[in-house]
Amino acid sequence: MPGSEIALSPEESHHLLRVLRACPGDALRVFGDGREFAASLVRSQRGIATVALEPRLEPPPPPRVALWPAVPFLKGGRTEFLVEKLTEMGVAGIIAYSAARDVARPGQDKAQRLQRVVLSASKQCERADLPALVIAPTLAAALGAAPGTAHRVVLIERSESQRLGEVAAILATPASPHPAIVFATGPEGGFDPAELEACGPFAAASLGPRILRADTAPLVAAAVILHAYGEF
Amino acid sequence: MPGSEIALSPEESHHLLRVLRACPGDALRVFGDGREFAASLVRSQRGIATVALEPRLEPPPPPRVALWPAVPFLKGGRTEFLVEKLTEMGVAGIIAYSAARDVARPGQDKAQRLQRVVLSASKQCERADLPALVIAPTLAAALGAAPGTAHRVVLIERSESQRLGEVAAILATPASPHPAIVFATGPEGGFDPAELEACGPFAAASLGPRILRADTAPLVAAAVILHAYGEF
Repeated sequence: MPGSEIALSPEESHHLLRVLRACPGDALRVFGDGREFAASLVRSQRGIATVALEPRLEPPPPPRVALWPAVPFLKGGRTEFLVEKLTEMGVAGIIAYSAARDVARPGQDKAQRLQRVVLSASKQCERADLPALVIAPTLAAALGAAPGTAHRVVLIERSESQRLGEVAAILATPASPHPAIVFATGPEGGFDPAELEACGPFAAASLGPRILRADTAPLVAAAVILHAYGEF
Repeated sequence: MPGSEIALSPEESHHLLRVLRACPGDALRVFGDGREFAASLVRSQRGIATVALEPRLEPPPPPRVALWPAVPFLKGGRTEFLVEKLTEMGVAGIIAYSAARDVARPGQDKAQRLQRVVLSASKQCERADLPALVIAPTLAAALGAAPGTAHRVVLIERSESQRLGEVAAILATPASPHPAIVFATGPEGGFDPAELEACGPFAAASLGPRILRADTAPLVAAAVILHAYGEF
């Protein structure tokens, strides 16, 4: 029905044209099928109003990849900030974990606070689905909190690892069967070697020669991966 | 000289081994050629210490593209936040402009405050050069503040424009002669049509179906373009 033109009944036409004094081009809201549509008055002929229904604004489809960033708890509201930005970008889930170094231990109400950020950011960017929010006690638990099929990537600064951009380009090729990716970034003090060893297998990746802050790296990494999947 | 092993003089060896009681593997700082090098003690034999000089840490090279984000002044410290993140990512210059809508008018000391953010972020990410910082009164002036050869891109939400990822991929192909790009993002209220008309020619681009906040879009756009040039 959206996208089409419809003629209103004589009663509705009278109300629209005589009572509301609508002119061609005026924006309207019409109800039908139990739903509301945006519409505009196209013309009136012999007392009958014809309106054009505009396509319903559908929420944006989810990205081609289910992306699960795992980010450390950071001080100064920066965890909230990351959750907001990652939600807007369209990630499938966000995992906040307690890092071995530089730990900002989450308070009792942290999960609820973050959930509120998820909700308001989802509304703001008009996404229909809320990203999942997971609180994990360790990096290993964080990587394990993503779907079992997810490709696991850990971003390690100053490493000689392959660039994340190259890793993402390979994963995003149509032949590559990885519909889900979980990536982890570290705290300001970096990962603890034992923390990494406890994780099991993962692909290490680098974000290039510049050292990004702990609240910058997850944003860049998410943008790079989603871009590789054609999202931006 | 860096990367090589050198034997210290008997006097220096005595000082290191007997006075400082250094053991093989210990990290040292050695001075030579008027410069300071990181080094480590490799071994001591017959009172002579041999140290290995570590490669000097060179600052990261600049990205292949000179990227100039033009961002509106935003409230609540979000301009500072953007300047910090964009500096870390490696942009060539940052242009902060007063948007026609939703204007957060910069105070007297805004330029100095932003310059301090540029400095601290440059140190943090170990880049050798500071990005240029330009304050522009309008969007048109902002686009004009980048090098004259820069390719001009304006990110417009809800537009049917080409995706920024596609634009960036074309610009980053080796045959494409655009070593500089200036891109502009708008304020929360979006661009004013007259503001866009005053800009002269530019390529319009979209960041996809999700509506990104005014302090999210510049970060995603910068990450996408720098990624297209192989930076991440």
